[in-house]
Amino acid sequence: MDYSDIVAFHGHQCPGLAIGYRLASAAMAALNVTRAGDEELVAIVENDACGVDALQCLTGCTFGKGNLIFRDYGKQVYTVYSRKTGTGVRVVYHDDGVPPECRDDRQKREEFIRNGPQDAIISLSFVEIDEPETARKRKSVNCAICGEPVMETRLRDTDAGLICIPCAEQIRA
Amino acid sequence: MDYSDIVAFHGHQCPGLAIGYRLASAAMAALNVTRAGDEELVAIVENDACGVDALQCLTGCTFGKGNLIFRDYGKQVYTVYSRKTGTGVRVVYHDDGVPPECRDDRQKREEFIRNGPQDAIISLSFVEIDEPETARKRKSVNCAICGEPVMETRLRDTDAGLICIPCAEQIRA
Repeated sequence: MDYSDIVAFHGHQCPGLAIGYRLASAAMAALNVTRAGDEELVAIVENDACGVDALQCLTGCTFGKGNLIFRDYGKQVYTVYSRKTGTGVRVVYHDDGVPPECRDDRQKREEFIRNGPQDAIISLSFVEIDEPETARKRKSVNCAICGEPVMETRLRDTDAGLICIPCAEQIRA
Repeated sequence: MDYSDIVAFHGHQCPGLAIGYRLASAAMAALNVTRAGDEELVAIVENDACGVDALQCLTGCTFGKGNLIFRDYGKQVYTVYSRKTGTGVRVVYHDDGVPPECRDDRQKREEFIRNGPQDAIISLSFVEIDEPETARKRKSVNCAICGEPVMETRLRDTDAGLICIPCAEQIRA
């Protein structure tokens, strides 16, 4: 996927998307890996801002595939881990590396983030992490109240039977 | 984005992806909307399985844009809301609508989910929901311990100063 595919996925172009593009590209180059068709890579993202859409596109670590782990730390930091080699790399974005003349011009800023020297805006370190578990498929059971299918690990065992979380919350309310 | 773009984003083809494709397509048709370039649409997803990748591609409600809200209920249910019209639609997938002859053949199953009659596998209802807030940009402050930039709302105020969550957890450990 090239940058135009990433912009098409995100829906628009913005500096935040460029940050994710740069961070994810740096991580993949350091790990010497290609996009994950399945769960070959895992990404731990420390924010849920625009850049994560670029990471999803580039690494193949996507919300729906179970190999995108979100930690709500508010930091422009990704850790990308290769299951194949057991290697992880942590990349950190440093906005103070954007030169003053690019700071207040959205387009110049984005351009610098996309194409400026990596060392100016990104620090990178290899890290050891416990390998995250792969996603597991579970069977579904119908909620005893609303009748809708529910993954078995999300059912609540109540006097009304096995029910889904929204029905359980409605009983409690 | 057509189905091949969705498969490219997800990384592979699978019945779960087809479920999300069908659900998201049904929701968008009911709302009569096009893909969200920004936050025109919001999706509330009640699972984080494969299908959500199709929803991200089709609706433009993506993890990085703040208009994808995850509720961990383990249900194949999406609610898609249009900020423009104030209308929401809730779509539910019913796997028991897949005919017996397609159940055990992965390819036939996927084919039916993608192209079978909508009424057999999806129920749809218009719903009223409180309009979710739009994503907000916050400034960053450097953590007093590790020095990394942190979104101000995620800082912890400690004896060591304003620090990030991982540093706060390390102090507590």
